[in-house]
Amino acid sequence: MAHFTLYSHAKGANGWSVVFVLKALGLSYETKYLDFGDFTNGEHKQEPYTKINPNGRIPALIDHQNGDSTVWESKACLLYLVSKYDTENKLGVANTPEEQATLAKWLFFQASGQAPYFGQGTFFMYIAPEKIPYAIERYKQEAKRVFGVLESVLADGREWLMAGKCTVADLANEAGIRHLLPDGSEKDFPHVFDWHKRTLALPYVAEALKEREAATQSE
Amino acid sequence: MAHFTLYSHAKGANGWSVVFVLKALGLSYETKYLDFGDFTNGEHKQEPYTKINPNGRIPALIDHQNGDSTVWESKACLLYLVSKYDTENKLGVANTPEEQATLAKWLFFQASGQAPYFGQGTFFMYIAPEKIPYAIERYKQEAKRVFGVLESVLADGREWLMAGKCTVADLANEAGIRHLLPDGSEKDFPHVFDWHKRTLALPYVAEALKEREAATQSE
Repeated sequence: MAHFTLYSHAKGANGWSVVFVLKALGLSYETKYLDFGDFTNGEHKQEPYTKINPNGRIPALIDHQNGDSTVWESKACLLYLVSKYDTENKLGVANTPEEQATLAKWLFFQASGQAPYFGQGTFFMYIAPEKIPYAIERYKQEAKRVFGVLESVLADGREWLMAGKCTVADLANEAGIRHLLPDGSEKDFPHVFDWHKRTLALPYVAEALKEREAATQSE
Repeated sequence: MAHFTLYSHAKGANGWSVVFVLKALGLSYETKYLDFGDFTNGEHKQEPYTKINPNGRIPALIDHQNGDSTVWESKACLLYLVSKYDTENKLGVANTPEEQATLAKWLFFQASGQAPYFGQGTFFMYIAPEKIPYAIERYKQEAKRVFGVLESVLADGREWLMAGKCTVADLANEAGIRHLLPDGSEKDFPHVFDWHKRTLALPYVAEALKEREAATQSE
């Protein structure tokens, strides 16, 4: 039996950030892909899944080697994996209030800024039954704004968001932007693009993305 | 000089969650309220504030007794205050991967689920130049869904979200819902309403809300 069960969706970016970390730490897992149906009545919104995650979203992670303890919200999963299993401190940061707060800042930036706007953009572009140009334009602009924030920070030449190495701060933010780099981003956001390429070149990210491609095709 | 400078906005819920914690821990602070203008070009979107927070949002917190170290994203501020200054463990949880992950789960639930949807609802109801019924209805429904999740969890009779006491998990979630409890919520979400009342009765929350009222009136 695998160490973890991961509940996820082939196209849900946040689930893949958890896979990045599971692979980086060499932890075994079995992914259960949920059928989202029309997004309002899929398996994620019903029992038995809502007994695991009452919020009805992916991902959720069950740790079979720790009494089946369950974590949901992807960034909480990343923090759990790093604090419990990253014994060589590959992806984490120093255990000081300052460094932990900086890590939290980048994780919440992704959770509260990047992910919801990109998610709402995707909803109004591809899922909403009405095409509402104002709403689509709003979220496109917000996505650009978020790229601009990352660009302004990475423009000082740092390779990674913090701590001089790739941490879960990078992996969480990266998972969200993969498919949303707008046209012209190499020109407009050169540092974000370089950072993006650095992340894609990490062996465990490359492996996870192969798995993603296979999962997306077999849907 | 106060121990902290807090950059905030009188009507921004997340800034008040930081005040709850500053007051609970007896830490001194001076709040600088930013003028948001028409929300796109206010002080929060310009230098000098974007030198403090490149994301151009409130709150940001400067710790003058720790080399002026700066934290932004409200939940990162809460975690910083608790890990550095909550020496009596008034608002925090045990320092184990499991308890910290549960705390993170509730903070990310608020950051990724509650706050963005409530924020987008407020935007489409009060700020957007076009009234778009579909968008308004979408975010009203999402707000109800979030109340439903909290209700399903609190319905087991627990007084607080976790750890048998009021923690920053409660304070972060509470700050977001204060002014958005929908009509009929006493009937539809009785456990959420009771939890809401318990939080309002905490002396430091009551004090913070008095401060909020004064700040809102003097705007």
